[in-house]
Amino acid sequence: MVTKKDIKFINNLKQKKFRYLNNCFIVEGKKSITEFINSDFKIIKLYSVDCSFFKNMTNQFEIDYKLLKKMSFLNNPDDHIAIFQFKKTKPIEDNNLIIALESIRDPGNLGTIIRTCEWFGVKDVVCSLDSVDCYNQKVIQSAMGSISRVNITYLNLKDYLKSFNSVIIGTSLSGKNLYDSNIKPNKGILIFGNEANGLSRELLKLTNFNLTIPKFNLNSFPESLNIASSLSIILGEIKSNGL
Amino acid sequence: MVTKKDIKFINNLKQKKFRYLNNCFIVEGKKSITEFINSDFKIIKLYSVDCSFFKNMTNQFEIDYKLLKKMSFLNNPDDHIAIFQFKKTKPIEDNNLIIALESIRDPGNLGTIIRTCEWFGVKDVVCSLDSVDCYNQKVIQSAMGSISRVNITYLNLKDYLKSFNSVIIGTSLSGKNLYDSNIKPNKGILIFGNEANGLSRELLKLTNFNLTIPKFNLNSFPESLNIASSLSIILGEIKSNGL
Repeated sequence: MVTKKDIKFINNLKQKKFRYLNNCFIVEGKKSITEFINSDFKIIKLYSVDCSFFKNMTNQFEIDYKLLKKMSFLNNPDDHIAIFQFKKTKPIEDNNLIIALESIRDPGNLGTIIRTCEWFGVKDVVCSLDSVDCYNQKVIQSAMGSISRVNITYLNLKDYLKSFNSVIIGTSLSGKNLYDSNIKPNKGILIFGNEANGLSRELLKLTNFNLTIPKFNLNSFPESLNIASSLSIILGEIKSNGL
Repeated sequence: MVTKKDIKFINNLKQKKFRYLNNCFIVEGKKSITEFINSDFKIIKLYSVDCSFFKNMTNQFEIDYKLLKKMSFLNNPDDHIAIFQFKKTKPIEDNNLIIALESIRDPGNLGTIIRTCEWFGVKDVVCSLDSVDCYNQKVIQSAMGSISRVNITYLNLKDYLKSFNSVIIGTSLSGKNLYDSNIKPNKGILIFGNEANGLSRELLKLTNFNLTIPKFNLNSFPESLNIASSLSIILGEIKSNGL
């Protein structure tokens, strides 16, 4: 039996405060739920229009699509909504290339970035404390399951970089030409700044050098690239050796 | 004087049908409006909280922020909303590299793609007829002004490719390794498929060859990359010579 209280609980999980108060978050859709089930995350509840897809699940509730639509964050939801428990973040593996994000705001961007990071074998993404929450439903949705496998750590980025003992690479509009520099670090940290403002001066002071994606027409538009696009281009170039 | 009818007119411009019936669309924010004014697009009306920014504009109306919020598609709108007239599409320049999109659905993806295309000097983006409309407010917003300069043509993509007389490059999960192939075409067409399904079989039959972005761990997740990320990586690699 699904009560009004259950529906309200799920709807409240849109709010970060409520997620952290209850230590859980929502995953929607067959594919993503399957990937989270097969990861370290523990499922708490599953609501399904058709219970035959996820078999032998405890805490699975069959509901009709109308009710599922009331619970969902999507306009055209898939047949399943699950609640998963938060898990503990693992220690950061600093013998690999780490991606750092400063004050990232857009959930779609964060999700896309995490998906691209996993594609290129990045294990750790670290985010400044004021970045959008990775358990936000739009992040989960655009990351397409990658949140279940990439280790995401929220921390004081300035303090972390100050004590970081490998190469710190920034990204800016006035750094070294990505394609000239032939930089293919296997370890170190690569930092991307906020969507509107780029990296803060504070963090730029801590980088060993900065990379720039050259523009076809230097004096012309657009002024910048989307952050997820920039990361894709830079990671693609850095990882192109040996793939 | 701004009437209820004016507000309703703007709100209706969210709908594609209404935009094409009235030959016009909405641009929000100082930066994007300035870029559209400086392009071939003709401004019809401008609503501003502060008229001192855009000076000597005919058809500018000063409104309060509360009213602007009623008109805006954004949660936190900038101080200006403008209506621009559609313009005629220019002929496609087929002596450059053209980007083609089949059945692209997500407006944020299309906007990001157009922004990245402009960054790398692509002049023409062609879209299949069932693709999301480039005058959709979310496309305009994520393209950050690039819609005002990149030439976007909606056409029957299959017919267009059949009569295309240069190299046709597809993108798929089982093509040539992007980094092995050393392909840097100055002209031709590069096609990306729908977000969920990739390129259709029909179009794959028409390509000379397909490119794949290699994955760090072939047998593992994620299954695919976001389309705007894929385009960024492939364009970045193709254009990396001479930038």
